[in-house]
Amino acid sequence: MSKEASTHATGNKGWVGYRPELKVVDCTVRDGGLMNDHNFPLEFVQQIYAADCAAGVDYMEIGYKGMASMYPKTQYGLWKFCTEENMRRAIGEKKGATKISVMADAERTDFNDILPREKSVVDMVRVATYIHQIPSALEIVADAHNKGYETALNIMAVSTVPESELESALEIIVQSPVNILYVVDSFGTLYSEQIRGLVQRFQKFTIPAKKELGIHTHNNLQLAFANTIEAIVLGCNYVDASIAGLGRGAGNCPLELALSFLHNPKFKMRPILEAIQNTVEPHREALRWGFAIPYMLTGYLNQHPKAAMQFMEGDDFRNIIKFYDDAVQQP
Amino acid sequence: MSKEASTHATGNKGWVGYRPELKVVDCTVRDGGLMNDHNFPLEFVQQIYAADCAAGVDYMEIGYKGMASMYPKTQYGLWKFCTEENMRRAIGEKKGATKISVMADAERTDFNDILPREKSVVDMVRVATYIHQIPSALEIVADAHNKGYETALNIMAVSTVPESELESALEIIVQSPVNILYVVDSFGTLYSEQIRGLVQRFQKFTIPAKKELGIHTHNNLQLAFANTIEAIVLGCNYVDASIAGLGRGAGNCPLELALSFLHNPKFKMRPILEAIQNTVEPHREALRWGFAIPYMLTGYLNQHPKAAMQFMEGDDFRNIIKFYDDAVQQP
Repeated sequence: MSKEASTHATGNKGWVGYRPELKVVDCTVRDGGLMNDHNFPLEFVQQIYAADCAAGVDYMEIGYKGMASMYPKTQYGLWKFCTEENMRRAIGEKKGATKISVMADAERTDFNDILPREKSVVDMVRVATYIHQIPSALEIVADAHNKGYETALNIMAVSTVPESELESALEIIVQSPVNILYVVDSFGTLYSEQIRGLVQRFQKFTIPAKKELGIHTHNNLQLAFANTIEAIVLGCNYVDASIAGLGRGAGNCPLELALSFLHNPKFKMRPILEAIQNTVEPHREALRWGFAIPYMLTGYLNQHPKAAMQFMEGDDFRNIIKFYDDAVQQP
Repeated sequence: MSKEASTHATGNKGWVGYRPELKVVDCTVRDGGLMNDHNFPLEFVQQIYAADCAAGVDYMEIGYKGMASMYPKTQYGLWKFCTEENMRRAIGEKKGATKISVMADAERTDFNDILPREKSVVDMVRVATYIHQIPSALEIVADAHNKGYETALNIMAVSTVPESELESALEIIVQSPVNILYVVDSFGTLYSEQIRGLVQRFQKFTIPAKKELGIHTHNNLQLAFANTIEAIVLGCNYVDASIAGLGRGAGNCPLELALSFLHNPKFKMRPILEAIQNTVEPHREALRWGFAIPYMLTGYLNQHPKAAMQFMEGDDFRNIIKFYDDAVQQP
């Protein structure tokens, strides 16, 4: 760490300094794709990538490596599969400074779809797994690691996992070659004190094993940014965020808020604001991501947002009393 | 404190318990009035009051006691002045369980407008003051106290006050008869670590003097709820919030989120959701409160939101690049 770099983690300069090793991962296309079955037009991805390069964002997650045989192409768009050809159409042959990440779901990824790193524009493979899929997830990690990629592992729905079982999982995971473990608040249900407890539980395993930690939040309780800050202060060095918060349901930590907090002069705000105005916000009415009462209620109840997402897709989405009575108050 | 009541503050049961002495103050009409010069129709205030009574909210702040000679009635609505007659038209002669609070601005209040408590529906007078108006503010406090009211003091724009001067102010204030001091993040600029520092600085004075502390936040950085939680955990017992967050600029801590956190069984969510759907949200398009990039930028810069409010009132309010270039990037 360079001499001039004060840190949040050491607390000696509070938020005024910055931590140069902290990396920002833009999940706009990947997590936002959960709102439209990954049917963003090519230009959308091109514009997000250009914005990330101009803003100094470290990684852009471009989508999923979904197994072709599992998902009908009549329903799902390009960014569910992220073929090498389509990724290159979006970001060109010569890449900017922003690295490319793809997400691979445990049990839904064909190893053959992941090329050796030298033949791909991808830099990082992030494996998403539920607690019961860890062995499958670690096979993908090992394969990607052997092919030369940086690797990350996201344990999803961690708010529903008993602490003792989480510790068993962490014990196994840190023995793998994975570079980064992620604390993921899939349901947007966690308060900062719970984030603190989880990060510290992860760190019992990641610090001795010299793995990095990341944080991925959802905004169901308007706590995505606050929880991201909490994790940063505790030492998480990989920060997921999305432009205008575009992501599943209530969305993610807004990238523009994350950048405003980080104070690393390499990050530039204006390209992100341009992307908000010209690229992302025009989809607001159709996709309806972002804080809304139905998402608040599923978050509060530590439930998957799918009921709220279905409700928000309907014509009657302003009838929050109906959602409350149907989904929450009834047994 | 009753035996069954675990607390956030002691931390022994975390958020699972509740603190019965914690009071919620609904600021929807008062802070929301800053978005329309207090021109809410009578029915609006009636419906908010009914919702608060049904939901178990402890106080409703009904508006300001603005000096009639200072504000033209052609511009300002009823809730800028809160005459006894108009308050009674809104809430009836027989009050529900929810108490009534009014705000009195230092140097802008005529003592004669504040009746003896036994002649009024008002229970609490909250005095709002900038740091340079403390002596004037304390005159209003003393007058209201002598007339029989509960009293509170909000030091506004505390994020711009040097810490040494704040301590001088607190030293004076705790010698007054005021019941409650408020930490107020007027510009929505504070991170939770700053809220923590401020609350602890206030507590150096309020704990020995046996005064209560309150918290009032704004959502410019999507931290209003998180900062409210932080203050609650530290021991603040008066919590300001607004239905659907309706308040100046980016708005306040949403009341529905505050209630979801508090877990006191006396609080009911459904009446608040009804008020959101039927009473508050219909004003969204006209008033445009709530998180938006211009408010984020003034919050980030620790500035009063007035430039952002003016911008959001215009037809070009989606042109956030223009706001950024004009108000932020230029000297």
